[in-house]
Amino acid sequence: MIMEECDKNMKRQVYFISDSTGITVEALGHSLLSQFQELKFEYITLRYIDSLNKVENLCQTINENEDEARPLIFSTLVDGQMRAKLSKANAHIFDLMGEFLTPLEEILNTQASSALGHTHGQGPDKHYEHRMDAVNFALLNDDGITTKHLDRADIILIGPSRSGKTPTCLYLAMQYGVYAANYPLVEEDFELMRLPNALLERVDRLFGLSITAERLHQIRELRRPDSEYASLKQCRYEVSQIGILYRENRIPTCEVTQRSVEEIATRILPHLHLP
Amino acid sequence: MIMEECDKNMKRQVYFISDSTGITVEALGHSLLSQFQELKFEYITLRYIDSLNKVENLCQTINENEDEARPLIFSTLVDGQMRAKLSKANAHIFDLMGEFLTPLEEILNTQASSALGHTHGQGPDKHYEHRMDAVNFALLNDDGITTKHLDRADIILIGPSRSGKTPTCLYLAMQYGVYAANYPLVEEDFELMRLPNALLERVDRLFGLSITAERLHQIRELRRPDSEYASLKQCRYEVSQIGILYRENRIPTCEVTQRSVEEIATRILPHLHLP
Repeated sequence: MIMEECDKNMKRQVYFISDSTGITVEALGHSLLSQFQELKFEYITLRYIDSLNKVENLCQTINENEDEARPLIFSTLVDGQMRAKLSKANAHIFDLMGEFLTPLEEILNTQASSALGHTHGQGPDKHYEHRMDAVNFALLNDDGITTKHLDRADIILIGPSRSGKTPTCLYLAMQYGVYAANYPLVEEDFELMRLPNALLERVDRLFGLSITAERLHQIRELRRPDSEYASLKQCRYEVSQIGILYRENRIPTCEVTQRSVEEIATRILPHLHLP
Repeated sequence: MIMEECDKNMKRQVYFISDSTGITVEALGHSLLSQFQELKFEYITLRYIDSLNKVENLCQTINENEDEARPLIFSTLVDGQMRAKLSKANAHIFDLMGEFLTPLEEILNTQASSALGHTHGQGPDKHYEHRMDAVNFALLNDDGITTKHLDRADIILIGPSRSGKTPTCLYLAMQYGVYAANYPLVEEDFELMRLPNALLERVDRLFGLSITAERLHQIRELRRPDSEYASLKQCRYEVSQIGILYRENRIPTCEVTQRSVEEIATRILPHLHLP
């Protein structure tokens, strides 16, 4: 082990390099480096590196780096020549395509096409249009604005106001092309202790978000400080009433208090009402 | 090369396995397999595989597979024991963590923590709250609803109606925590050939979406068939007038006709107006 590698207080430069959006390489790189939480990293993403010239320029930049430690490079460059050039940079290189394409070619008995990255492109199929239509659907069916299109919904999220229904619907639409509507339960529903008719008729597509009263109170305070709506008392009341409605109607739920929209959305996926 | 590997018409099973959301492993797996476009794959994502028991169950399922060809497994499992168990499955295994964590440990001279995946978690920092606040900002500042908060915008997208401003803003917010507003240019702006004052005052944050008249016509026809609004003539007029406005005001632009929101968003990132 040489000395340069040992100083843990130093911020190590990390490059994410892609011939396309860089979304994949950022995701895998962050995932790997999240295993080294005591270290500090400085992230630099270089997207659309799609010519030998651009690779050459970035190698120069990297080679001019005067940090003690060599940078890390995570790359999803596909083109063989560009990868070869990048491999000459004075850095530790994690060539995600190179590492896996050769064994894949052998297993699949087929040459990789070396087409530049199109994972996040519009693609040749209907999936992209479908995702965009789902985003429009989520916007149109947000917050119970209308119940006209609920029959087209793959899932209808319910839960107290500010529990994260809207961003979850948008994520389900954008990432997975899921048609997700959401419907807020309101005072009247709690008093009658009965789901609105529009929901009762579609109880098999309902999915409930559960959140602790304390967290709900925190979130609402940011929006309307010192209001009745944000009070811990009101939050406790709503959370407890909603819990009863969920149980009585056997609605599947997800506890969202500590979870991101990505986590909530992926936990909803198995519950989709697909034709 | 054994016979089982050679039939190109067969749909090969592909498993994406994650102890968390599976978003990273899906992205990398699709990216790699998009290099083999003439082959057919059947994708199965197994998320939240976070116990030895679950790994054991999935190994059983895989081993019961009666396809001629062994399935491919892409895994981002972090835990060493789970990875070891998975490696016993009768499949071709691409262990994304195993492949890179050991060299990273050496380079960084630090043990990986083996914490289960939290790439898409809420995380300990402010970034998650920031992203969600940005989503709310995008919703609140969509389609020129209000110009009150434009000073908080990192970027203001402009372009003809239905050119993709809204989903792009939402993606910028959700993925990168960018505060993105959007403002539609309307008939009056084209007639006066002048940007509205609210935009002129913030010309350094404007970013223009460009689209071909033909594609705009197609998209608008889906929404309002046979309308004046959707007519090719109207689309040509708007596209040409907007092009002039972009040039006169030296507004950076992106051609969106063939691009996904992910591509448009990542091409906008270098243009953010950050304090």
